[in-house]
Amino acid sequence: MESLKQRFCGITDGKYDGRTVLETLIRGGRIVRLAELRTPCALVDLDVLERNCARMWARAKRLGVKLRPHVKTHKCVDIARIQTRGQSGAITVSTLAEARAFASGGFLDITYAVPVPFPAIPEAADLLRQGVHLKLLLDHDATLRELETFGSAQGVSFPVFLKVDCGYHRAGVDPLREESAAFASRVARSPHLKLEGILTHAGHAYRCRGPEEVRQVAEQEREVMAGFAAKLRSAGVLVPGVSAGSTPTCCTAEDWTGVTEVRPGNYAFFDAFQGAMGSCSLADALAFTVLATVIGHYPERGTFLLNAGALALSKDPGPVHLDPHCGFGIPCDLSGKPIQGLRLTSLSQEHAEVEVSAPGLCTHFPLGSLLRIIPNHSCLAAACFERYRVLRDGEVVDEWRTERGW
Amino acid sequence: MESLKQRFCGITDGKYDGRTVLETLIRGGRIVRLAELRTPCALVDLDVLERNCARMWARAKRLGVKLRPHVKTHKCVDIARIQTRGQSGAITVSTLAEARAFASGGFLDITYAVPVPFPAIPEAADLLRQGVHLKLLLDHDATLRELETFGSAQGVSFPVFLKVDCGYHRAGVDPLREESAAFASRVARSPHLKLEGILTHAGHAYRCRGPEEVRQVAEQEREVMAGFAAKLRSAGVLVPGVSAGSTPTCCTAEDWTGVTEVRPGNYAFFDAFQGAMGSCSLADALAFTVLATVIGHYPERGTFLLNAGALALSKDPGPVHLDPHCGFGIPCDLSGKPIQGLRLTSLSQEHAEVEVSAPGLCTHFPLGSLLRIIPNHSCLAAACFERYRVLRDGEVVDEWRTERGW
Repeated sequence: MESLKQRFCGITDGKYDGRTVLETLIRGGRIVRLAELRTPCALVDLDVLERNCARMWARAKRLGVKLRPHVKTHKCVDIARIQTRGQSGAITVSTLAEARAFASGGFLDITYAVPVPFPAIPEAADLLRQGVHLKLLLDHDATLRELETFGSAQGVSFPVFLKVDCGYHRAGVDPLREESAAFASRVARSPHLKLEGILTHAGHAYRCRGPEEVRQVAEQEREVMAGFAAKLRSAGVLVPGVSAGSTPTCCTAEDWTGVTEVRPGNYAFFDAFQGAMGSCSLADALAFTVLATVIGHYPERGTFLLNAGALALSKDPGPVHLDPHCGFGIPCDLSGKPIQGLRLTSLSQEHAEVEVSAPGLCTHFPLGSLLRIIPNHSCLAAACFERYRVLRDGEVVDEWRTERGW
Repeated sequence: MESLKQRFCGITDGKYDGRTVLETLIRGGRIVRLAELRTPCALVDLDVLERNCARMWARAKRLGVKLRPHVKTHKCVDIARIQTRGQSGAITVSTLAEARAFASGGFLDITYAVPVPFPAIPEAADLLRQGVHLKLLLDHDATLRELETFGSAQGVSFPVFLKVDCGYHRAGVDPLREESAAFASRVARSPHLKLEGILTHAGHAYRCRGPEEVRQVAEQEREVMAGFAAKLRSAGVLVPGVSAGSTPTCCTAEDWTGVTEVRPGNYAFFDAFQGAMGSCSLADALAFTVLATVIGHYPERGTFLLNAGALALSKDPGPVHLDPHCGFGIPCDLSGKPIQGLRLTSLSQEHAEVEVSAPGLCTHFPLGSLLRIIPNHSCLAAACFERYRVLRDGEVVDEWRTERGW
């Protein structure tokens, strides 16, 4: 007899035998159009993605640094392959779930760029034993002791980066304090650790008001890291790698002297925040959007509703330091072009409210209309979805899964 | 030969043969303690959950209204069973994914409480044909026409609620306009629709500053709905159901005369927002918390870091209208008791920064310490997780899955 589970879970676009109905259609050569998709859903424009990835690759090459993209933005193995030119090359992750999934996808050179949580150490050791070159982050003596205790008991040697604070003040050792150099030296001498280098994240670049300010942060980031590496080397500490660079600083810096690799992530997709800061053009660089349907229509109030709420866009407030009225994302037409006169004023769990600037504008968006939304923060919005619908020339040509959780 | 997938995905706490390692341990009778869990993870206190559910059930019964809990808060079949006293009773959902999953879990009386998106109509019809009494929402003539066209072509009759705006101004018809009564009458006469009643959501209760203001919103909600139902009935429209009530108004209202059912959801878990508004006590009503590990320690700055970021807590700003400095959640000890002097000042994707009010306080939270965080908005934070770890007396006794997506 048919179970309730079989009865209700094998329907259009739901999971079925490990493959979705949509995927089956695509693989069978059927053309799938945006209007056929269940909404809200996550769209990736392949042309734009490939262009963004190629540009950043070329830029890193021109400036003489290795590109180690941060995959936390998309959490998708297929996209990381494009970022590393099909090589399953060096990547950065933010969770062990990403490390496991990308390792199983062939990526074996991974930096886990969060100060390593103690409960994650045994699993990190498992990945190392299985051949993943998984580099951990530390900035504290207690972590050094924890890794040494584990490493000594289990016969493991952990490759590590020393996390350095270049001005963001979230994590990392202060490069100006003498204790920091002494700590680096202890790490370098430890028999159970292998110092791979120093690493920083200039998150304060996100507080900048435009490329000129970002360029100053990038220069500070470079100077601090190059200077600290030189100081350590002069004290006899071997510092093979100097890792820096986020999307804003990688889009503007013209000099990475003293830095060996950069780890931008957001550039694959970009978003409304990066657009406002000037990291990218809103016209042709936005690779990730959320497709939504108009489900409410209130011309008397000058509003309409979309079915993409906080669970599809995240509640990231966006670049409010540049525009306090920026709203929760940028409504666009089906070609991905921003629509003038619309503002996404509020989000609840499954609703977005859009205000129109002129009363008559509502009539252009009747119930059932489809819009694409550029999210404020693509990293958080993309993590709302278990898969992307991949577009080429406006048609769905593939489905790619994301690796969420921890 | 072992594939990369097998090699990296069959490890501690990862998915394995459809059952997690943790689940296998629990089912095998092994006691699992908080310190053994990978973080961040979602905890549900079973005692508190059961008490919250029993209280709301008793309250609805005492006030003579049916309780139709909104499962969007937890998205979990096991919790809905507790809310409906083991009966797989009437529920409210916010997505078709929830409707499908709860139907397969035995829940066949479901209200889909979002204005129905046109692309969802065929699937809603499938669920109806398969025996789910799925009630849809509408507030616009275009939806009436769309449902009639589909219903006529496919021989389906859709049970519907007319969505009414009781003052929130997000969705719904204006009950004071003559067109609204005329529209209700057209819906009631349609051969392809069955009017189940009228329905509202008093979301503006969340702007209130305390129970007294909430009580006024609840009374407005009741009056508007009872009045509109009476008006429709006097015009000859049959209005079987009058559906209202969110968690804030259900926690404070003492009179639901004229209302037939209430649809609170958040009360199963509650959260920092509901605590600040006075819907619940922060001392004993918080059933959902996020377990996190201290991963950074900066006593010189008076901060430490937790590994629960925006992807584990959501970026909901919380009750800023009551406390502009409320932060992104309430840090608690392992028993779930709020810790004085800590403030969760900022979130990035996988980090939370906690500020301490006195310099020495940092030393109480060394690297590796575990904290529990009460999120600002439990509905959004719970949706970050694919499963809950269920606690009784501080030990993990079960794992329950969530039904995410659309």
